[in-house]
Amino acid sequence: MAKTKAFKPKARRPRGFEDRSANVLRAERALVRAASDVYEKWGFEPLETPAFEYADALGKFLPDEERPNEGVFAMQDEDEQWMALRYDLTAPLARFAAENFQDLTKPFRRYQFGEVWRNEKPGPGRFRQFVQCDADSVGAPGPAADAEIIALASEVMGAAGLGQGDYVIRVNDRRLLDGVLESLGASASEARMRVLRAIDKMDRLGREGVELLLGEGRKDESGDFTKGAGLDAGQRTRVLDFLEAGGGSRAEIIARLEAVVGDTAGAQGVEALTEIDAILRSLGVDETRAAFDPSIVRGLGYYTGPVFETELLATAQYEDGSPIRFGSIGGGGRYDDLVARFTGQAVPATGFSFGVSRFAAALSALDRLDAARPDPLVVVVAAEKDQMAEYFALAAELRAAGLRAEAFVGGGNMGKQLKYADRRGAAFAVIVGSEEREAGTVSVKDLALGAEIAAQLTDREEWAEQRQQFTVPRESLVSEIKARLSRD
Amino acid sequence: MAKTKAFKPKARRPRGFEDRSANVLRAERALVRAASDVYEKWGFEPLETPAFEYADALGKFLPDEERPNEGVFAMQDEDEQWMALRYDLTAPLARFAAENFQDLTKPFRRYQFGEVWRNEKPGPGRFRQFVQCDADSVGAPGPAADAEIIALASEVMGAAGLGQGDYVIRVNDRRLLDGVLESLGASASEARMRVLRAIDKMDRLGREGVELLLGEGRKDESGDFTKGAGLDAGQRTRVLDFLEAGGGSRAEIIARLEAVVGDTAGAQGVEALTEIDAILRSLGVDETRAAFDPSIVRGLGYYTGPVFETELLATAQYEDGSPIRFGSIGGGGRYDDLVARFTGQAVPATGFSFGVSRFAAALSALDRLDAARPDPLVVVVAAEKDQMAEYFALAAELRAAGLRAEAFVGGGNMGKQLKYADRRGAAFAVIVGSEEREAGTVSVKDLALGAEIAAQLTDREEWAEQRQQFTVPRESLVSEIKARLSRD
Repeated sequence: MAKTKAFKPKARRPRGFEDRSANVLRAERALVRAASDVYEKWGFEPLETPAFEYADALGKFLPDEERPNEGVFAMQDEDEQWMALRYDLTAPLARFAAENFQDLTKPFRRYQFGEVWRNEKPGPGRFRQFVQCDADSVGAPGPAADAEIIALASEVMGAAGLGQGDYVIRVNDRRLLDGVLESLGASASEARMRVLRAIDKMDRLGREGVELLLGEGRKDESGDFTKGAGLDAGQRTRVLDFLEAGGGSRAEIIARLEAVVGDTAGAQGVEALTEIDAILRSLGVDETRAAFDPSIVRGLGYYTGPVFETELLATAQYEDGSPIRFGSIGGGGRYDDLVARFTGQAVPATGFSFGVSRFAAALSALDRLDAARPDPLVVVVAAEKDQMAEYFALAAELRAAGLRAEAFVGGGNMGKQLKYADRRGAAFAVIVGSEEREAGTVSVKDLALGAEIAAQLTDREEWAEQRQQFTVPRESLVSEIKARLSRD
Repeated sequence: MAKTKAFKPKARRPRGFEDRSANVLRAERALVRAASDVYEKWGFEPLETPAFEYADALGKFLPDEERPNEGVFAMQDEDEQWMALRYDLTAPLARFAAENFQDLTKPFRRYQFGEVWRNEKPGPGRFRQFVQCDADSVGAPGPAADAEIIALASEVMGAAGLGQGDYVIRVNDRRLLDGVLESLGASASEARMRVLRAIDKMDRLGREGVELLLGEGRKDESGDFTKGAGLDAGQRTRVLDFLEAGGGSRAEIIARLEAVVGDTAGAQGVEALTEIDAILRSLGVDETRAAFDPSIVRGLGYYTGPVFETELLATAQYEDGSPIRFGSIGGGGRYDDLVARFTGQAVPATGFSFGVSRFAAALSALDRLDAARPDPLVVVVAAEKDQMAEYFALAAELRAAGLRAEAFVGGGNMGKQLKYADRRGAAFAVIVGSEEREAGTVSVKDLALGAEIAAQLTDREEWAEQRQQFTVPRESLVSEIKARLSRD
């Protein structure tokens, strides 16, 4: 039969997007489930906003521009309005809260997880779609709401399998720095933003680099010049001393900060940290879990009060034994002005966000998240094609006993099927050929043991073969497999 | 301070998109989790492909067109290639299977759930984003793989809380009709498609309307004429008789169909149904759960063998007592040609897909899915603002005992806080004011009981008030609340 030459597209993913496979997904889902369970326990409600928002609602569209900025995936709807895929979960929450403000039971405490999209140049390990998980509290102005969010973040770390010493939440309050700048006469908006941006680079540039950015500016290796905040030497020292006011207990740091900020706007920050400390103590969130650190600012401009970062301290190892450090895997803070973009009225809000893929990958490398491990798999080999119904019944029995089990539905001989079972990571392959059928027995290949024997490179092949394969009466298959699994 | 007049966007969702709230999400998540557990148990692996595919990979772009068709949300990437948001989970699976074919362990059995997008005119109840859940098996040519998928669909129905008589899976094989058409000399591709489309309208148009579409054509109420398949009267009767060959046991239908299709291509369909029947019987999936029905075709053109639809039979009731029928909530079948779009080589594939929102909404209306119900909530009232740490500790104790509990973090007096607890659907509000604190007691308001009393419109207000509120020693709060809950 002659065929007209059909158009044949090439099978390939768009650049910067990934297919996520079983191991990765199991870890991510176990993490999201653990976090969701914590949020539910604390009375937070789930919410899912759609992938699209109007571009102006995302703050990615200014009225004098012809199209939304480059960082988002945007398209025009039928009525010519620009829509864009959300790039985080906070902007959609602000839209939702503004749209439904009158009807919401306040404080409105919700959690949301889901994909976000960034229209950036794809690169190695840089994806244009990833999963975030956020919990926020809208309508609660006091530090108790911030303390609740920080305690939640700590409980999420625990639910993810992290213990004392594995992580620390570094907490600060933006108003402390504002107080310092006020006392230096440098609280103008532009100077403040430059100071915040400079401080945010402490990790990367160190004290020396930050001092340049607090002063006249800094030229980087490529020769690019970044304008500084214009502080003089005395002012710079005051700011840097403030940043280094951490260390010691939360109470000690509060006392030190109180002295630094005096009766400037920073006093509100001291008051907030004092209440946060009391609530965290009452919840058993001690200083190994949540420390105060004046150098934490969080890059984003929209925070207005307490801010925090969750940092993984536990390290995994590269093959050469050197440590893999994971650093910050999330953070959050108070942002009282975000809903005001729509309504003109400040609405108190505070929240915590973490990147699911990044955090789950770290937990996998650390071998935490027990829930991410699938149950052992049993493959019933299709030895005789006319006995499929019987093989399905065998697999169903194994499932009823709590195992994962399947009858092989593909094509190919016994060798190919055993290879399939092996590649799937099955613990056992079950074989019922004509011989076993007539004898009322079942042959079982212990694939996990097989892998172990192969790893020991034993040359006693016959012995290994015997230990690896055994025959049991049909009716004791399930109990024998369960017994072997519990022995491991 | 004078402010420059800032641009203030209106807070609104793009048209055709919805915000999904707690009750809806709890039902959808319970359903997805139940289905995922079934798929995992059967040895299916999770997979997540990205939201974007190249438009040509979705089959929504022909090389002589300037832009992808209207049904998808598409945009051009930096390199001018058209990407589009997936409109189902099957096309991305075909792309994935084609892209990774050599490396996949086959049969490759995966499940996936996630959002899909359709760029259609929004209307009441018609959304442009919704969640689908699919399970497919790629690389298994035989009916055993189809039987597995049908058995899985039945087990998912059971896991969703549906019992015998609540649902039925109607199974057919596309090749049976091909056999009938072959025996009529009407198997040309165009006639076949018109016949399939006509049959697919049986539900809506009845036998008479379908007969017109099988013949010269049909004019609808608006006067639009749909060209028919051009069968003569005898041919039409043969097709209609075939469609009505259902009824009775699966064995009876197989015998009837065998006589109808003889040794045409339809014989393969009879063979497939025979094996499917044997496997389903062996798994205890009886005829109340999976019936054979020759009138099932499934609209989509790409099916090549067994096809099936899952239909809900259980009905809920409108307020006037009339039944709410839900109809089909999913379906699937074999599609051996879909991967070939990329590779040129047929790859066997079969699967099952259901719409999560639609199915979950039906289950909620039917009051199934016990897992969707949240645990009872307790709100600890913020009676004295300087006692927040203590209120947080109380809430933590209640959580440790397995309850959902929160300390109120918003503003407002006692009345406002109790109203909050009520609107959140809390079972209890816990109050520790100065009086209770000094006495070492806790006051508890039984809000569930309060709602019950209010519903009975009792005028014995004082009595009601007393029963509703009680005081217990601080240390017996948790046990008292647990005791009251277990009494319900």
